[in-house]
This record gives sequence, structure tokens and C-alpha cells, in this order.
Amino acid sequence: MDRFRIELPSWGFADTGTRFGKFHQPAAASTIEEKFSDAAEVNRVTGVCPTLALHVLWDFRDGAASVAEVAGLAKTTGVRAGSINPNLFQDQIYKFGSFGNPDPQVRETALQHILASVEIASAVQSRDISLWFADGSNYPGTQNIRHRKAWFEDGLRRAHAALKSDQRMLVEYKPFEPAFYHTDIADWGMALELSRAAGPQAKVLVDTGHHYSSQNIEQIVAWLLDLGMLGGFHFNDRRYADDDLTLGSIDPYQVFRIFHEIALYEWETGARADIAYMVDQSHNLKPKIEAMIQTVTTAQELFAKAAIVDHASLAVHQRNGALVDAENCLKDAFATDVRPAIEEWRVARGIPAQPLAAFRESGYRQRIEAERGGKNRAAVSSYA
Amino acid sequence: MDRFRIELPSWGFADTGTRFGKFHQPAAASTIEEKFSDAAEVNRVTGVCPTLALHVLWDFRDGAASVAEVAGLAKTTGVRAGSINPNLFQDQIYKFGSFGNPDPQVRETALQHILASVEIASAVQSRDISLWFADGSNYPGTQNIRHRKAWFEDGLRRAHAALKSDQRMLVEYKPFEPAFYHTDIADWGMALELSRAAGPQAKVLVDTGHHYSSQNIEQIVAWLLDLGMLGGFHFNDRRYADDDLTLGSIDPYQVFRIFHEIALYEWETGARADIAYMVDQSHNLKPKIEAMIQTVTTAQELFAKAAIVDHASLAVHQRNGALVDAENCLKDAFATDVRPAIEEWRVARGIPAQPLAAFRESGYRQRIEAERGGKNRAAVSSYA
Amino acid sequence: MDRFRIELPSWGFADTGTRFGKFHQPAAASTIEEKFSDAAEVNRVTGVCPTLALHVLWDFRDGAASVAEVAGLAKTTGVRAGSINPNLFQDQIYKFGSFGNPDPQVRETALQHILASVEIASAVQSRDISLWFADGSNYPGTQNIRHRKAWFEDGLRRAHAALKSDQRMLVEYKPFEPAFYHTDIADWGMALELSRAAGPQAKVLVDTGHHYSSQNIEQIVAWLLDLGMLGGFHFNDRRYADDDLTLGSIDPYQVFRIFHEIALYEWETGARADIAYMVDQSHNLKPKIEAMIQTVTTAQELFAKAAIVDHASLAVHQRNGALVDAENCLKDAFATDVRPAIEEWRVARGIPAQPLAAFRESGYRQRIEAERGGKNRAAVSSYA
Amino acid sequence: MDRFRIELPSWGFADTGTRFGKFHQPAAASTIEEKFSDAAEVNRVTGVCPTLALHVLWDFRDGAASVAEVAGLAKTTGVRAGSINPNLFQDQIYKFGSFGNPDPQVRETALQHILASVEIASAVQSRDISLWFADGSNYPGTQNIRHRKAWFEDGLRRAHAALKSDQRMLVEYKPFEPAFYHTDIADWGMALELSRAAGPQAKVLVDTGHHYSSQNIEQIVAWLLDLGMLGGFHFNDRRYADDDLTLGSIDPYQVFRIFHEIALYEWETGARADIAYMVDQSHNLKPKIEAMIQTVTTAQELFAKAAIVDHASLAVHQRNGALVDAENCLKDAFATDVRPAIEEWRVARGIPAQPLAAFRESGYRQRIEAERGGKNRAAVSSYA
Repeated sequence: MDRFRIELPSWGFADTGTRFGKFHQPAAASTIEEKFSDAAEVNRVTGVCPTLALHVLWDFRDGAASVAEVAGLAKTTGVRAGSINPNLFQDQIYKFGSFGNPDPQVRETALQHILASVEIASAVQSRDISLWFADGSNYPGTQNIRHRKAWFEDGLRRAHAALKSDQRMLVEYKPFEPAFYHTDIADWGMALELSRAAGPQAKVLVDTGHHYSSQNIEQIVAWLLDLGMLGGFHFNDRRYADDDLTLGSIDPYQVFRIFHEIALYEWETGARADIAYMVDQSHNLKPKIEAMIQTVTTAQELFAKAAIVDHASLAVHQRNGALVDAENCLKDAFATDVRPAIEEWRVARGIPAQPLAAFRESGYRQRIEAERGGKNRAAVSSYA
Repeated sequence: MDRFRIELPSWGFADTGTRFGKFHQPAAASTIEEKFSDAAEVNRVTGVCPTLALHVLWDFRDGAASVAEVAGLAKTTGVRAGSINPNLFQDQIYKFGSFGNPDPQVRETALQHILASVEIASAVQSRDISLWFADGSNYPGTQNIRHRKAWFEDGLRRAHAALKSDQRMLVEYKPFEPAFYHTDIADWGMALELSRAAGPQAKVLVDTGHHYSSQNIEQIVAWLLDLGMLGGFHFNDRRYADDDLTLGSIDPYQVFRIFHEIALYEWETGARADIAYMVDQSHNLKPKIEAMIQTVTTAQELFAKAAIVDHASLAVHQRNGALVDAENCLKDAFATDVRPAIEEWRVARGIPAQPLAAFRESGYRQRIEAERGGKNRAAVSSYA
Repeated sequence: MDRFRIELPSWGFADTGTRFGKFHQPAAASTIEEKFSDAAEVNRVTGVCPTLALHVLWDFRDGAASVAEVAGLAKTTGVRAGSINPNLFQDQIYKFGSFGNPDPQVRETALQHILASVEIASAVQSRDISLWFADGSNYPGTQNIRHRKAWFEDGLRRAHAALKSDQRMLVEYKPFEPAFYHTDIADWGMALELSRAAGPQAKVLVDTGHHYSSQNIEQIVAWLLDLGMLGGFHFNDRRYADDDLTLGSIDPYQVFRIFHEIALYEWETGARADIAYMVDQSHNLKPKIEAMIQTVTTAQELFAKAAIVDHASLAVHQRNGALVDAENCLKDAFATDVRPAIEEWRVARGIPAQPLAAFRESGYRQRIEAERGGKNRAAVSSYA
Repeated sequence: MDRFRIELPSWGFADTGTRFGKFHQPAAASTIEEKFSDAAEVNRVTGVCPTLALHVLWDFRDGAASVAEVAGLAKTTGVRAGSINPNLFQDQIYKFGSFGNPDPQVRETALQHILASVEIASAVQSRDISLWFADGSNYPGTQNIRHRKAWFEDGLRRAHAALKSDQRMLVEYKPFEPAFYHTDIADWGMALELSRAAGPQAKVLVDTGHHYSSQNIEQIVAWLLDLGMLGGFHFNDRRYADDDLTLGSIDPYQVFRIFHEIALYEWETGARADIAYMVDQSHNLKPKIEAMIQTVTTAQELFAKAAIVDHASLAVHQRNGALVDAENCLKDAFATDVRPAIEEWRVARGIPAQPLAAFRESGYRQRIEAERGGKNRAAVSSYA
């Protein structure tokens, strides 16, 4: 438990929605101060969220000039800047893509934005630059798939060259949305190929919501671990598409199995998997901070369940083809109620035993609703 | 061919997008005048789009008071008002649903909006009120599925009671988005049950993009025809979710098979299926008017291919279990190039042989880009 | 807990496989005696499986003449005959379907088989006749969907007429396999329509593996409960298609939510839902009896978790739009370790606290392996 | 057209089925003589099927000793031996896998079978050894994913070492079936990784039915072409899972787009893509030979449509972001009726203008039905 830390996304505290609209919350954050403040509150009640993922376009309004502000907020809130997320989909120039755009000027603009993001990351001492590309096409024949692949290799290679030796570039994949015919980095295999093309500090980023229906995510995780190419996770849950729901809300056993593959890898190899756990949820109906606390505590519980799988027995049963016994190693761990042990762990560290209750008792929400409620929402940038 | 007419959606001429943003087009329509004008242009070059579906919230800004304006536009453009579409998802009060909302006040507000829409429909002499409900829930346990079903029955019954005797209520279904755990009207079976509960003038509306992956849409069409419950279509194409792409862009054979089931039904029964064909696409990269022309001409071609299936031979082959021959009745019709015949048909009726080319030669786009290009886009209401 | 009973399938003790082959188990059952014996063993160690679903073609080799044998086995083993399952897919005449076959003779043969099954059901005092139809087509155009619908209505109506007043006909649906283009009863809506057409004693049978990817099964359950049309379940789990895996092995939270909808319905209405819970798994790698025990105990655990949901609180939270709290009512119940309580319940009733361990200690498997191991497997009829 | 050749599968002429049973055809082939004879008939009427894929277990009953028989048949029928397909799933020892089996003895047996297959391939002068592995697991936790990956690398490497310098090893992927939890080579990315691990003569084999719902197959094809790793195709169509239907029966536009990516690649690079086109269908309702002719002629038509795409215009439109025009390059080619041109091509080469009609007129089917119809079917080995 002491090793489990999970990063919060700054955009997860802002109002978001679907293409059909956005439901506004009076407590939603719209400034970088508010986001740091909310993240600090989540960290206060959970004790496991020391960093905040930042979005360059939304959180560094003045680019490098905003670095001092962020550094100051990190100091006052006790929450450090986490992964740095460029934005390569919002500007009108990206209509036909960023790194995959047929127009070399747009590709150059995209590169400059990433280079600026790397600089920002260096300035705020962030290790990871997380790259999600919305690039793709919506109709057969409208784009040249192989040319775009080559442009991506080129762009990523040049971006990689700007990394400091202790930084990493995380390459995310996604089968569809917003592109509906083809997405340039559609699956883990494409992200892997492009990461290798980029350079040794590039790793694959697994967003749990970015898979085909019924695809086996934990197998992908196991392969990436084996290849030394798993960089991190964007955690959320989904039922249909990239629904960005709170973690474990739809299929908690799936999340448990992901943690299990990691724990098994570490048990077998004796190595520590160097993985960035990050929340990436953006749904708009649950109160933002409560939804974040719910995801963090759910992640802790599923991580803890995976930690108590009896690996030695499992290995024996797997070797013997004892299917029922092997499976029961997982089922038993999953059926165990780990909540009391986690509460004890919290209390021993001065963390509230029940984070959600502690948050509610704090009056924080009432305070920020009063402060933020009257603001004009129109200017807020976020998903949808 | 003379019988094939297809309705255009007013919102299909406006800027739309995904939750990740909207790419603006200088030619996008933002006023009701512009939408009628664009629809009239599509009708001019295709000759088969005499009506325009209207969205109450966006096209009747002043409610009933806007009726005269719409009637005037219909007169000057030669395009009549088509189906009337209430909006029950955009307002903040609909956060937890409209007819399915636990709050009776919200349900009442939703009903009043539909009743107002029925009145508007009467005023503009529209037959069909198209009802799409975004209602649902995003997390297990957060809503009572059966209570919501009962509230829907009640609301639809009361809305049905307001219909004139020659009006119809079309009930649309959709498996997900914007609701990601459960959608109150998730499939054709639920839409059918609720339509029956509503009353005899309620029929089911099939949006071709609103199905599970690999679901057999033409079978649903055949069943609804057999039950006398098929009210109409919202046509678009998709690969993954409700992608709202132009018709036939991903799977033209699927659209052909839908038309085939209708043609076969009419051939067998001698009856004319009373079906409203409507376009519902809202994707944001293709030029709006060109995308609409493309969909309309594609629909014509696939309708024509379905019309030349040899039904008599097909019936014999089906009876005999002659699988290859039966299938080849469809394959042969689909392989036939119907474009020359359609061009002849157009020329004989004074319609341009090649609608897209005619549109491009007209200078219409250049004209509206000049007129509309400078406008402030912020105020436009549409999807995303 | 006292109310939870689950029926075992006779075919679940026999060797089964996929189209790629069958892996033989020395302990697999091949005669009706062996199936009853195995079912009795499962019932002995779990205490909740008093009935055995029977397959007419495989378990009543001599039709009505086999009834006495079955009755005798029921007496000696203490396991009663459960639902009666006709077979309408195995014979060569069913190549193009049974009730949906264009050939009236085949339809008549199918009807006679069902009528014989009803008689057998009466003779062994079974209430439920479970109807699964493999009918469908594999290529577009090869069958007339509406004609087949009409033939199904006719066949089911005539079969229904033969039911005794206390018998039920359960109509199962399945989207695909073995038919790959269209299946005549593809979804719950079609099963519902056909059940109503058949008569008042026809209800819908939900096989948990027979849905589209990501379809919300518990919503269908809630609707069928509300309509008074839910007849029973065939329980199994799956990841991709109709994989027929042991229950809860892939998505236990999904099964929990199904039980929750039933428990909530009963709590709200005060009525007891009259539902036949049946296992239907046929996978071929786990030892047959152990796999069955695993499914039964998993079902018990998930049923028990659903029983401890705080319905009163849930109702309040749902009414208030308190999403996090409402969802936590389900999450908390699911996170609770109910195994100790179930063990207590077992011990109090003289059932082994740990069914799987008890089975292993009994030496039953070694005994039957010795007895059955040498037999010729070629003659066994079962799936694959 | 002169360049298009497609290989027939010997197993495609035998009775096959689903796990629910097999419908026998009097004309089905059960011996290697019959399979060669049927393939020769398909080649006679289509002129584009000079080779026959062979299945080691079923077609070389006596292993290397059967080589002379096959060579003789090739000589008399004019159809050469094509790709050689080992079988690593049928024997009872493969219950827990072949190359992925935890038991080193089983892995060794599997390797020996592949090595024997390579020898057979050399003896019959076949270039390609096609490897499909059914390996996987059915329940979470029952197998070690990373260990199996390592065993696969090892086995493939050793098999590759046995290849002659002009031979290739084709590695196929498949997401599921017969394994329902995880499949060791589940997607193109895994097949690519393992092919590279095996050695330079290993390439990826794309079976069009082995993808997730809505996965973009032509993008995978484009990537593999770009990487120089596309070895060949197993062609069939499907709606749901691996349905093994005749090509283009469900989604012909998809097949067209695959051919388009290949044609575009060749046009751009000036290189000839070295790809083995193979049919792999095994469905059991259509008459076997007619189904094969239907697939071959459909493949020809879709290949021809792809060949007439205007690549130069397409490239310009793609560069300009002219979405509608770019897409129309594909739509126009697809809408063109290429059947007359293909008939001309056939006539010019002495091939029957209408292969299916020519086959029917030949009396071949009646002849083999008379000859084969009385045989005992029980002994035939094939899928299901």
C-alpha cells in the first residue's frame, strides 16, 4: 500500500460534458488555482495523490510564463506538477490532424507546441510528457495512412530528441473518437511501433477506456511489461466507448486483473515496474471532487486485492493445469474485503479513515460553491 | 425513383463537432433563413428533398411566435417544414433526464415542451413529431429503471393525446451516448413497447447509427414493417458508435439491405410502406452542403439498387433453399451501376444530371462564405 | 439465502467443446444415470440444486418410453427432473431451420418434437419447457425474415395450446451462432413479441451469454420483470460471444447487478419474482463437476451480495440525484465478503461449509474416473 | 487482372460445421483426391486458383509418406500444393496449448509437428508454412501470459531455423475462439512481435475474420505493408465473430478497401507487394464448390474495382483536404460495374465467361454426388 500513488488530472475538476452539452457544477474549477486547491483536498483526504497532471493549453495560459505561477501553487498546496499534456486537437489548424497532417506547416506547429511542453515539463520538474493524438480520418480514402505513419515517426523522433535524459514521452493509443474511420495511433501495437521509432525514452500509455469491446487489456499490460514498454495508465471505466467514467464503476474485476498482472510481474522478476498511474476521467454528472475521491479509493482497494493474490500457489496451479484452483487464487483475493485493512493503513498514517466522509465533513465543497458559483462559465476550456 | 423523397435536417447545415471541439466552416448556417436557403439549394440540385426537419429549440427561437417566420421561409424557398424535433437534453434541468427524471416538475416541463412542439407542428402543418430522449444514467444503481419506464409511459401517453388525428409521434431508440450506463429507450424493443403504450399514432423511428455493433438492422426493419410500427429513419453511417457520418460511407451494402427489406415488403403486400426517410448526420469536417448532397445521391443509388432486385426469382430461391442463387439476387442488384439510369431520370425531370457538380458550378458556396464568414460563431446552438 | 435454488443442466456434465474439437475428460458423464449421479453430488455439497434440466434428444433416448427411467433416477438420487429442453437444431432436416423452415413438413416435425417434449414434461412433472431455436440464416437474402416470423408465431401458438395449465413455455433469444447473418429470435424484443403471440404461459428466457457486446442485461431484466414476462435465466459468463464459461468468471459485478434488479423489484413490490434460475455452461476444460460447484457457489455469493443492498437508502439517494451515494449502496454490498455468512448458513443446514473441498474429499471423482474412463466416447451426443 | 491469383483451402471442400453440428453434403470431399479434384474444377471455371492450401494432419495422413501422393495429384489435376498448414489444436495433448503449453514435452511435440510440416513443404515445393495457434486460456489466472509469450518466441525461433532460404513462415492472429479469456496471439501487434522474434522469413498472416468488431482492417494492412511484414491473407467474411462466411457476403466495401490499400501501396512505391491471397472459409450450408466459386469471383470483382481507383487524383485530393472528392475516388470505383470487363478478360483467356454457370453446366456436381454420396461421413476430419 505504501507504494501506491495515483496522479490526478487538472481537467477532471473542470466542467466537462458530451457533444450534447455540459451540465455545470457550481463547484467546478475553472482556474489553475482552483484545480490545485481541489487536488490538494483530494490528496488531503486520501494521502496518495501527490501530483497533478497539467494540460498545457488550459493550465499554462501564458506558456512558459505560467511556470512560476504553477510552481508557486505546487509549493502552497503541497501537490507537485505531474505529467504534462500538450493539446494537439483543439485549434482549428488541426482539422486534418497534427503530426499526421498533410500540411508540413501544421506538423511543424504541432512539434513546436510539444517542444514548448517539454520545456515547461523541465521547468516544473515533471518527468512525463503524455501525448494523446486525436489524429485520424472520418471517411475512407480521405487520408494516406502510410504517409501519416511516416510523419508521426518523424515528429515523435524530433520531439524525443528534446527530452532531458530523465524525462519520458508517453504515447497513448485509442481506437476511435474523435476520428471515426481511422485513428493514426489506434491500438497498442501502433503505439509500440511509434514509441520505438521515437527513441528509448518513449513508452506506451494505456488508457483503460481506449480499447475495442471485449479486448483483453491485462494481456496488453503483460506484454508491455515484458517488453519494458509500459509507461503508465490513464484510469477510467467504460461500458461502450471512451465513456470516461469513474474507475471500477462498470467492471471492477477487469481493473483488479490489470493490477494483478503488474503485481505478478513484480513478484516474478523482483523488479519494480516503473509505471505512472494517472486518473483520466471527465464525466460530468457526479460532483467532481467526490468522483475523484471515489476513483482513488476504488483504485486503492483493487490494488490491495491484487496484492494479496497468493502468487506462489498460483504459479504451481498454472504449471499443473489446475484451472479451478488457479482461478480461485484470483477469485479469493477479489472476494476479500480489504476495506478494513486500508482504513487501518490510513489511520496509521494520519489520513482520514473514510476519505469521502472526511471531505464532506470539511465544508470544502460548500466553501468553493459559494466562491465559484457565480462565475461566468463560458470562458472555461475543457472537453466538450 | 419517383417515390423516393428524403428529408434534410436543419441542424445538418450548422457547425457541429465532438466533445473535443468543433471545426468551424465559413459556409455553416446559423440562422433559420440560412438553413432553409441551404436546404433549398440541396433540393434544387437533387430534386428529392422537399422538406426540412426542424429543431424547436434552435429553429423556433421564439416558440410559436416563430411559426410565421418559418412559414414564410417555406414559401420563399419552396422547401416545406418537415418533422418537428423537440429538445429534451440541452437545458440544465435535464441533468437527470426529461420524461425519466425523478423530479415530477422536470417531467412536467418536458411534457410542456413536447406539447408546444405539437402545436408548432400543427401550425406549420407537419405530420411527424420526432422524439429522441437522451435520458438514462451513467452509473449502476443511480436511477430506478422501472420507475423511469413508468414515467416514460405516462409522459408519452399524455403527449400522444395532444396529437391531431393526422399527426404521428416517432419514438427513437439509442443504446448509449450521452448516457453511458443505461439509456431509457435503448433498443427497438423498448421503443416499440413505449410507442404502444403511447397510442396508435406512435411509431418507431430507426436511426441507422443507433445499434449495437453487428446488430442486424434490416431484420429490425422487417419486424417493424410486419408489425405496422415502422415510422421512419434517421439516416447516417457509422463504424464504431453514433458517428453520424454521411450515409453509405462505411457500409453501403447494409443500407442497400435496408431498402431491400422495404421493397420486398411492398412487393409482397402490394402496400406502400408509410415511412419518413430523413437524413440525420452531423459530422463536422466535410463541407456541410456537399456532405448533404453526397448523402442524398448515395441514398438514391442504394434505393435504386434495391428496386431492381428480382423479387419473384428471390422468392423461388428462398423457398428452395437455393442459397447461392438467392443471395446472388441481392449481389447482382448491388453490383449493377445504377448511376446512368438515375442521371437519365434527373435529366427527364429538369434536375441536374450531376448534383454535386451543379452545386459547385452554381457559386452558391462562395456566395454564402462571403456572407456568413465573418459572423460570430459563439452564439450558434447545435450538437457540441 | 433459503430461497435461492439453481437448476443444473444435464449436458453440463458431458464432454463438450468448440468447433475445433473436444477435450475428453475421463469423468465426463455419458448416460442419463451418470448425469443424475453427478447432479446429485453437486446438490449434496451445495444443497441448492434440487433439479436437473433435461435434454429430450440426449436424455430421453426412447422418448416417452424413457420417462420411467428418469423418474426412477430422480427417486434414487433425490434430484428431480427440471426444465425440459427440446432439440431443434441437430437433425439434418433442420439445415434451414425448424419453426422458421420454409418447408412446412419440417415445421410440422419440429412441432411434433415440441409436443412430445411437453408430454414428457407432464410425465416427469416438469413445469418449464425451455425453447432455444438455432433458426436463422447465414447470408443476406437467403431467407424471408417476415415469413419466418409468421411461421414462428404459428408454431409457438400451437405448442402453447398443448401446455397444461401449470406449465410454462420459456422462449430464449440469441443474437448469433450458429446462424451468422440473421437469427430469427435475436433479442429480448423478438422473444417478447413471440411469447405474447404464443399465449399467456409463454415467458422470456434470458441466457446471460446471449447479448450484444456491452448491452445492458440488467435493464432487460428490469423491463421483463415490469412486464411480468421474465421466465428464467440460463446462467454463464462470456467475454466475446456465447462462450458458456462458468458464472461470474469474467464479470461478476454484472451478475450481481442482475440479482440486484430482481431483489429491488421484490422489495418494492412485495411480490416474489417467479424466476427459474438455471445454469447453462458447456465449456470443456475445467473438470465438469468442479466447474458446476464453482458456478453454484459463485451464484450464491453474488445473490447474497445483492440481498444486502440497502434498498431504503438507495431509493432516497436515487430520488435526490445523489449519484455517488446511490452507487455506493451497490459498491458497498459488492465489496462485502459474504463468504463467512454463507458458510454459517450451510453449516446450520448440514451442508458442507466448503462445497468444493467437500467434493474433493469425497473421492467421487476418482470413483467415476475409474468407472467411466475406459468407455468409448464417440457415441456421446452433446454440443460439438 | 492477370496478376490476381487466389489459393483454395483443401478443408473448404469438406463438411464442416459449428459446435452445434454439421450438415452433411453429398458432394463434400473427404479424401485428398477429392479435394484436389474439386479445386481443379474451381480452377477450371475461374482460371485464377492454381494452388491448394493443404492441412498436414488431414491431407498428409501418413506424413512425409503422403508427399508422393500429393505430388501425383498435383500433376494430374494441374493444381499445385500451396501453403502448408500444421495442426496444433486437435490432439488431446493440446488441451492447454501447443507452443504456449506449460508442459515442455507438449511444446516439443508441437515443434516436431511444425518441423515435419516444413519438411513436407519442402518436399512439395511449397513456399509458405501458415501457422495458426489456437493457444490461449479460458479463465483469468489460469495461465501465465508472459511465460507463454516467451515459449512462443522460443518455438517460433526454432521453427524458423528449419526454413529453407526461399520459404516463409506466416503467423496468424485471432482475438478469440476457441480460447475465450486470452489468446496468445490475439492481434496484429502480437503477431508482428512474434514474427520478428522468429526471424526475417516470418511474416504476418491477416485473416479478415479475426478482428474485433469495427476494427479497421485496411489500416492494419497499410501498416504491415509499410513495415514489410504482410505475408498474406485468409479471406472470408463475418458479421459477428469468426463466422467464416464467403468473401464479401456481409461487407464488400471493406474487402474493396483492403485491396485499395494494396493497390495504392504498389502505385506509390512501384514495388509489387508479395502477398499470398488465400481463401479460408468453412461454413457449412452453401454447396462447397459453388461457395468457393462465389468467393473467387467476388474477390476478382473487388480487386478489379480497387484497381480502377484514380490514384493520381486521390493523392491530390488527400493533399488538399478535399474530403468529398478524395472519398469519391473510392466510391466511384466501387460503384462501377466491373463484371463486363472481367467477362471479357476471361473469354480472352479461354476461361468461361460465367464460372458459376459453367460449373453447373458441367455436371461435375451430379457426378461427385453420385460417387461420394454413399460414403460413411463419420471418419472425416475437419472443423467441427
